[in-house]
Amino acid sequence: MTSQFETTARLLITCPDRPGIVSAVTTFLYHHGANVTELDQYSTDPTGGRFFMRLEFQTPHLDVSRATLKQAFGDVVGQRFEMDWRLSFAADKPRMGILVSKHDHALMDLLWRWQRGELRVDIPLVISNHPDLREAVERFGVRFEHVPVEAATHAESEARMLSLLEGQAEFIVLARYMRILSAGFVARYPHRIINIHHSFLPAFIGADPYKQAYERGVKLIGATAHYVTSELDQGPIIEQDTGRVSHRQAVPELRHLGRDLERQVLARAVRWHAEDRIIVDGNKTIVFA
Amino acid sequence: MTSQFETTARLLITCPDRPGIVSAVTTFLYHHGANVTELDQYSTDPTGGRFFMRLEFQTPHLDVSRATLKQAFGDVVGQRFEMDWRLSFAADKPRMGILVSKHDHALMDLLWRWQRGELRVDIPLVISNHPDLREAVERFGVRFEHVPVEAATHAESEARMLSLLEGQAEFIVLARYMRILSAGFVARYPHRIINIHHSFLPAFIGADPYKQAYERGVKLIGATAHYVTSELDQGPIIEQDTGRVSHRQAVPELRHLGRDLERQVLARAVRWHAEDRIIVDGNKTIVFA
Amino acid sequence: MTSQFETTARLLITCPDRPGIVSAVTTFLYHHGANVTELDQYSTDPTGGRFFMRLEFQTPHLDVSRATLKQAFGDVVGQRFEMDWRLSFAADKPRMGILVSKHDHALMDLLWRWQRGELRVDIPLVISNHPDLREAVERFGVRFEHVPVEAATHAESEARMLSLLEGQAEFIVLARYMRILSAGFVARYPHRIINIHHSFLPAFIGADPYKQAYERGVKLIGATAHYVTSELDQGPIIEQDTGRVSHRQAVPELRHLGRDLERQVLARAVRWHAEDRIIVDGNKTIVFA
Amino acid sequence: MTSQFETTARLLITCPDRPGIVSAVTTFLYHHGANVTELDQYSTDPTGGRFFMRLEFQTPHLDVSRATLKQAFGDVVGQRFEMDWRLSFAADKPRMGILVSKHDHALMDLLWRWQRGELRVDIPLVISNHPDLREAVERFGVRFEHVPVEAATHAESEARMLSLLEGQAEFIVLARYMRILSAGFVARYPHRIINIHHSFLPAFIGADPYKQAYERGVKLIGATAHYVTSELDQGPIIEQDTGRVSHRQAVPELRHLGRDLERQVLARAVRWHAEDRIIVDGNKTIVFA
Repeated sequence: MTSQFETTARLLITCPDRPGIVSAVTTFLYHHGANVTELDQYSTDPTGGRFFMRLEFQTPHLDVSRATLKQAFGDVVGQRFEMDWRLSFAADKPRMGILVSKHDHALMDLLWRWQRGELRVDIPLVISNHPDLREAVERFGVRFEHVPVEAATHAESEARMLSLLEGQAEFIVLARYMRILSAGFVARYPHRIINIHHSFLPAFIGADPYKQAYERGVKLIGATAHYVTSELDQGPIIEQDTGRVSHRQAVPELRHLGRDLERQVLARAVRWHAEDRIIVDGNKTIVFA
Repeated sequence: MTSQFETTARLLITCPDRPGIVSAVTTFLYHHGANVTELDQYSTDPTGGRFFMRLEFQTPHLDVSRATLKQAFGDVVGQRFEMDWRLSFAADKPRMGILVSKHDHALMDLLWRWQRGELRVDIPLVISNHPDLREAVERFGVRFEHVPVEAATHAESEARMLSLLEGQAEFIVLARYMRILSAGFVARYPHRIINIHHSFLPAFIGADPYKQAYERGVKLIGATAHYVTSELDQGPIIEQDTGRVSHRQAVPELRHLGRDLERQVLARAVRWHAEDRIIVDGNKTIVFA
Repeated sequence: MTSQFETTARLLITCPDRPGIVSAVTTFLYHHGANVTELDQYSTDPTGGRFFMRLEFQTPHLDVSRATLKQAFGDVVGQRFEMDWRLSFAADKPRMGILVSKHDHALMDLLWRWQRGELRVDIPLVISNHPDLREAVERFGVRFEHVPVEAATHAESEARMLSLLEGQAEFIVLARYMRILSAGFVARYPHRIINIHHSFLPAFIGADPYKQAYERGVKLIGATAHYVTSELDQGPIIEQDTGRVSHRQAVPELRHLGRDLERQVLARAVRWHAEDRIIVDGNKTIVFA
Repeated sequence: MTSQFETTARLLITCPDRPGIVSAVTTFLYHHGANVTELDQYSTDPTGGRFFMRLEFQTPHLDVSRATLKQAFGDVVGQRFEMDWRLSFAADKPRMGILVSKHDHALMDLLWRWQRGELRVDIPLVISNHPDLREAVERFGVRFEHVPVEAATHAESEARMLSLLEGQAEFIVLARYMRILSAGFVARYPHRIINIHHSFLPAFIGADPYKQAYERGVKLIGATAHYVTSELDQGPIIEQDTGRVSHRQAVPELRHLGRDLERQVLARAVRWHAEDRIIVDGNKTIVFA
């Protein structure tokens, strides 16, 4: 439901499973005037497993301020159940930085969806290692920064990017950014960098997956959105999709067809992240979509 | 999770939406020693809408008998929130009667899945208006009854079927049963008769949908599982799927391809019904799959 | 294969089936220096049915001019087998006019794909009954014409549109054009107007199919590209696709999700038409994709 | 079209591409009274590439015997163009041996489809390294042979299997046969052993792909039918498909869901092989489906 977006809050929780968690959380919210409108819950194992939950609730009748609600939730419920938790308010749109190289289809698709209200985020800036997309980005009223990246000065380039993003972006989308980020860069945004890989991972890790797919003679191509970790193409998978191909499609056709998969898979992943629908559990994701 | 099936209970709820419902339900369960392992909730509108919820919980540490739990839930929670609710225990497998005519693919697929443990139901009997499938059914250790259905004696035939099903089946699956059931028959099993229709409803209502599809020149064929109501092919839709076809497939090929869709769509619908995952809301279904 | 696009020719044929057609056509081409690189053939029935064929061939070694080849093919092969046939050269890109109202997603997607070289057409102009999309269209270097359409002056508006399209466009795409074209307009472009309908036809004919889909409670939504005929939403279907939805999606979400289906289905249909891959057979299409 | 199956012939051709091949083949057939009803052709590159073609034609008016047609085709057309070619008659159903271990779903699905006429093959025998499925197989009127396979006597077991298959089967289906065949065994049936692998290859090669998929946290599972070569899971891919999963499915649920993918993917691959629709090109397949 898109209704009442401005007064929607979201609570993401993970903790060791044990009886009474749902009751404690929902009773706390009820007593403070919140009305739960969506609740999704999952346990890996009822005895000794982990507990995951996402709630959406309406806030017009809260009896305390948002800050106080947060403080109280931590004190009363969070500590008792040893929770990792995150409470956010939809009206505080998350700020999303974008890194891109030369392929513009994933970037343009995100900007379009954003302009139409499909993605509830702010986009403070787009950074590219090529100058080509400046006009296309600025046309959407979004700031564009060109940061050249060369092997010799990779560290300086990343430092420049980090200083541009500092305080500006809560998460980062690699919309076909073709350079590898250093472990140091990645560590600054743990589980907050989303990459779109143009294959059905773990098939075709690394460079030019469409060429790899063509050479292997697969009958489906794929795309995978995942969180970036320090290991290339190994991070937690958020979303995947595949499309049918045949012997008639050579590498250029696979690239064309793949674009449609890439932009749809990435758009879903970004939306779920922006709506706090994803919990990372080890090297996997729980997605309450 | 398939684990701990024997001690799993399920609670399905629908009521007018208002604050406090989730809290009241989960606190009640917690106080009686139940551990919630899966919870899915949906509201049509947080103000003035309807509330729908499904819970799974573990029962080994219940502090009361199952009967007492039911009684108490109704008294303490159900009445307060004007709930329609249903509490069931997975160990009490629902009993599923099957009606079939001559096409055996949907029937055989159900019996197979059942034999392999994919469908947690008991199958007390299969009724057919043709004698042909007796051996195939009895081979699974399932009782087979042949009830001829002729236009002139339709009422008697239905009476015979109802008396066979009486006390034997909580719900009925029409696994390609090609006769129309009377309103009176349907009224005996409200939202408890599942039909598989061999088209993507509401396209191609009525007879021979594959022929209709061929003549319209569609590029996808479909299958729809729905609850039977007194209006032909108009009941609440449970599940649908489609598959790609081209000009090369004539009606016989559409029938072949359609069989695969039919048996998969029907199997999902039956499983969801048997696991109490479906709530009917007017002419729609809420499916907590 | 995208290679050698400039020297590619295409031949589309339909005629009564009888022995010797493929031999006659391919021998004719061989004798004139053409090299067949793709051939797709279909017969409704080997005895007394209709024959359909599409060939692609390479023209660098033709021993006659293109005009002479056409003339000779008609004289030598076409008349002998009573063929409807069409010979085209890929280098002569077809010119595609676009009609649109206010929804811009289908239009923008076509312009994007065209700009990237995915659609081998020229776009002489976009006509809209609203002025809103002028800037978005002109940014692609494409002419935009605003032709207001009111009930009282519908005939004049169509006359204006026809005069703008005259000599400019071989085929027309309705990229979410929300007015009904008159039978007279349609007759000017027989099987050369492509519409995108936002449902899985024949389900949900007419206005606001997403609302109809929501009210029926379907579990999949769809999109259909078809040729426009004088009967609303009844023309030959070119392409269709569906996407999964649930009770959680209200009408606005169905519209969002549907956009992705619409633009992909329309793009495929337009590409197939532009590459002469479609033969209309009564109220159906043969698509050699 | 299923019509006139008994009089249908099929011709599969691959050779170096050059002008005139289609003309020569179809003219030869025409002169001998054959009527081409389906023709599919593909070239990797019009200059210096390879040429692939499949034809179906009707034989009631052949002016020579089948043996003479074969001889003449080789002499007149095959040698001239250095063709690998294969001419078969649909009425001579290919004989398919099946190897299976304990999982019966792929086997049962094949037997069912065969019994219903979806697969036009003869099944002379099923061989298993376990005795369990004898009754299930013999019920279809198919011979069952139990050949125990132990590490120490692997060579003897394979020799026994080969002697059972000798002269009985033109191709072999591994319907979840869990032992690795030796290079020597495979060499006896080059590109005539079809395996169903329970993952989207090349992801999850080797043992227990559902466990691997679960541990990697993929959002889709898959199945792949491929020809067996001496390298495990590396042979030419015939067909693949994927299905959606989420964090809620543990390994047993992935296995359940995967069964449906496996049996459908395998059925398509077997049908295409039986209808001579597949040409192996290096480590890829051309599928004229």
